[in-house]
Amino acid sequence: MTTWTRYLTRFAHGESLERMTFFSDAVFAIAMTLLIIELRAPEAPDGELADALLALVPGYLTFVLSFVVVGYVWLSHHRKFAAFVRYDRGLPRLNLLMLLFVASLPLPTAILGLHGDEVLAVVLYAATISAIGLTMTGMWLYAWHRGLVAPRIDLGVFRFVLVQSFPIPGVFLLSIPVALLFGATAAELTWIAAIPASVIITRVYRARTEENTNP
Amino acid sequence: MTTWTRYLTRFAHGESLERMTFFSDAVFAIAMTLLIIELRAPEAPDGELADALLALVPGYLTFVLSFVVVGYVWLSHHRKFAAFVRYDRGLPRLNLLMLLFVASLPLPTAILGLHGDEVLAVVLYAATISAIGLTMTGMWLYAWHRGLVAPRIDLGVFRFVLVQSFPIPGVFLLSIPVALLFGATAAELTWIAAIPASVIITRVYRARTEENTNP
Amino acid sequence: MTTWTRYLTRFAHGESLERMTFFSDAVFAIAMTLLIIELRAPEAPDGELADALLALVPGYLTFVLSFVVVGYVWLSHHRKFAAFVRYDRGLPRLNLLMLLFVASLPLPTAILGLHGDEVLAVVLYAATISAIGLTMTGMWLYAWHRGLVAPRIDLGVFRFVLVQSFPIPGVFLLSIPVALLFGATAAELTWIAAIPASVIITRVYRARTEENTNP
Amino acid sequence: MTTWTRYLTRFAHGESLERMTFFSDAVFAIAMTLLIIELRAPEAPDGELADALLALVPGYLTFVLSFVVVGYVWLSHHRKFAAFVRYDRGLPRLNLLMLLFVASLPLPTAILGLHGDEVLAVVLYAATISAIGLTMTGMWLYAWHRGLVAPRIDLGVFRFVLVQSFPIPGVFLLSIPVALLFGATAAELTWIAAIPASVIITRVYRARTEENTNP
Repeated sequence: MTTWTRYLTRFAHGESLERMTFFSDAVFAIAMTLLIIELRAPEAPDGELADALLALVPGYLTFVLSFVVVGYVWLSHHRKFAAFVRYDRGLPRLNLLMLLFVASLPLPTAILGLHGDEVLAVVLYAATISAIGLTMTGMWLYAWHRGLVAPRIDLGVFRFVLVQSFPIPGVFLLSIPVALLFGATAAELTWIAAIPASVIITRVYRARTEENTNP
Repeated sequence: MTTWTRYLTRFAHGESLERMTFFSDAVFAIAMTLLIIELRAPEAPDGELADALLALVPGYLTFVLSFVVVGYVWLSHHRKFAAFVRYDRGLPRLNLLMLLFVASLPLPTAILGLHGDEVLAVVLYAATISAIGLTMTGMWLYAWHRGLVAPRIDLGVFRFVLVQSFPIPGVFLLSIPVALLFGATAAELTWIAAIPASVIITRVYRARTEENTNP
Repeated sequence: MTTWTRYLTRFAHGESLERMTFFSDAVFAIAMTLLIIELRAPEAPDGELADALLALVPGYLTFVLSFVVVGYVWLSHHRKFAAFVRYDRGLPRLNLLMLLFVASLPLPTAILGLHGDEVLAVVLYAATISAIGLTMTGMWLYAWHRGLVAPRIDLGVFRFVLVQSFPIPGVFLLSIPVALLFGATAAELTWIAAIPASVIITRVYRARTEENTNP
Repeated sequence: MTTWTRYLTRFAHGESLERMTFFSDAVFAIAMTLLIIELRAPEAPDGELADALLALVPGYLTFVLSFVVVGYVWLSHHRKFAAFVRYDRGLPRLNLLMLLFVASLPLPTAILGLHGDEVLAVVLYAATISAIGLTMTGMWLYAWHRGLVAPRIDLGVFRFVLVQSFPIPGVFLLSIPVALLFGATAAELTWIAAIPASVIITRVYRARTEENTNP
């Protein structure tokens, strides 16, 4: 066994994904929580607080949107990493790339909160969410092909999880041409479609696979 | 066993709540700590520092209030999650909803620190604290009815914990009509009642259950 | 066994201090790291960057001081919690009180960074550090008297750790009258004494206990 | 056994590095994520958002640079701490020193984002990155010589990891004289060399050690 092999097997590879998940959790938690401090409490004079708070509503709604989307991504990360039993040299790097997009999100979120009616702000936000979703999907494919996934996850479950990964980045990717063609508001309305799209895809795929397994 | 069942049992459900608790801890810790940076150190000229620091006192007291309330909620979360032995698809979602309110708290806290004498600021703050407390109680009920709670927690202990969950959101909910009827200061004074209310309810319920079990 | 006893033994008390330590770690880490963002990068015109950076030096030194002191407190927390084997209802509350002072520290640190030559800023900072140190010592005493400490920690080791807990809060407490009598700079100079005081007390106590155990 | 020995073996030394790694992870995560809030969303009037966003690009690129470098350092920390089986009184202190540089990084990063064409900003940034890398290398050497490293790491693997530790701090250290002699841009260009330097050194060392072990 050469030094390189010993280096790989005894140092660079490993079976404990605990630290990688906790580090990711910290980045997720900070990115989800940081945004609220972008929304500065207004120093309005007495009696004008109501108007000042109304002006904060678009910023707050964007905070909620990012919290929900990243929360959904965190749930998916949580489940996927619970299904991994091993890591190699590539997985932590893909994970860091995904976290780079997550850590970047407060900026597009704040831009969208201030400029929700501008195409550029919508495109930037949708591109960041898509990038997070696609690197998550990439990690799932990578881990499967490198044999890092637990044996209890068979090909059927692997494919089901893969199919479930597409609605969110898919809807946000699609909203980019919608924004360019029909404007910012139209694109934002398509985002609402992410939730029913997610439910429908899960239902359809579930029905199809049940037909196949129960002929 | 269909793909859907295998997906649920092998991927979406689980027994390790470790990661969910650590992620929650990070959100709690960030929300509790972030607020201090809203209180900017004053750039007062020499000799006027004392006045500038006095002006920071209401903001600091609001920080302490939020720290104590969220600290209490964290303690309760800590104990409840230690009593859970399993999670399903709903529990992480309820937990994320609760964390959304926790992560939002720095904004109402900062608003209250600046506008402690305005009804709107008081109502917003009390509504956020109530929402945190009620989703916590909701999680406890949900977990019990879905069989996620450890067998060592019998019906008596379950009910005792449930009863203990009400004083804090109850007092803050009640302070909303008080604020609307009698003004901001009256509502803030009712908040002080949360601590004796909590102690009294625990004592009364403890005395009653002891009578029943020791006839 | 009454409901209350079952509540205490099965819900409120416990043996896993893991979550309490990780939550504390997050608060420590945030308080230690947050301060750097108080130091805003100067938007100086070209060629005047050197002067602008020099103006940041006092703020940076205060950041380093707080990082070192809180780092030392973290080390002590780390060792003490590793010696605990159980918790009751009081320990998490004392811990939250200590974390409240830790989470507050960024504000006195920023004030000291801006007003290092004013007595008030020095007193506020020294009082916060003392409060952190004294609640840490209080937790150690509390845990010992409530039987929460592992049996491997005998009375000799308990006392040794106790003695070691005093130099830092002691020096900072002493610096408060020094500041009031001789001014801010004199008090800041006494802080430097914390390190030799810590080393000397350890040496003296070690020498004395070695005499006693090796007669 | 004296009190001092019992103190060392039962209190100050230990085998569980878990808490030290999680605390480090929190500091890494906060330092990597905090920076994005330095990049304030521009409040540009309608139609001028594109120009305002272009002005954010240098700041964003510096954020990405710091995220990638600290991410790489985190990976290395992750692997090294997984190879440690014990800690003594020195290791946590070295680790805190390294984290002090990591926690400081947001400031030089923000300065570089604003003043990327000034030698002073480049030198400050390069010095901070070098300090992080060199204390990491110092910890590896320290742990090896104090016998804190797992037996599965033999001398060959130890040396291989040591050699791998040099490209990043080496390139950044070298960029300091380059900045002083040839200006800020030249120094920034040398940073790009860190990645190929890292790959080449790994390859060359791997080839050499394979020759030796397979004669």
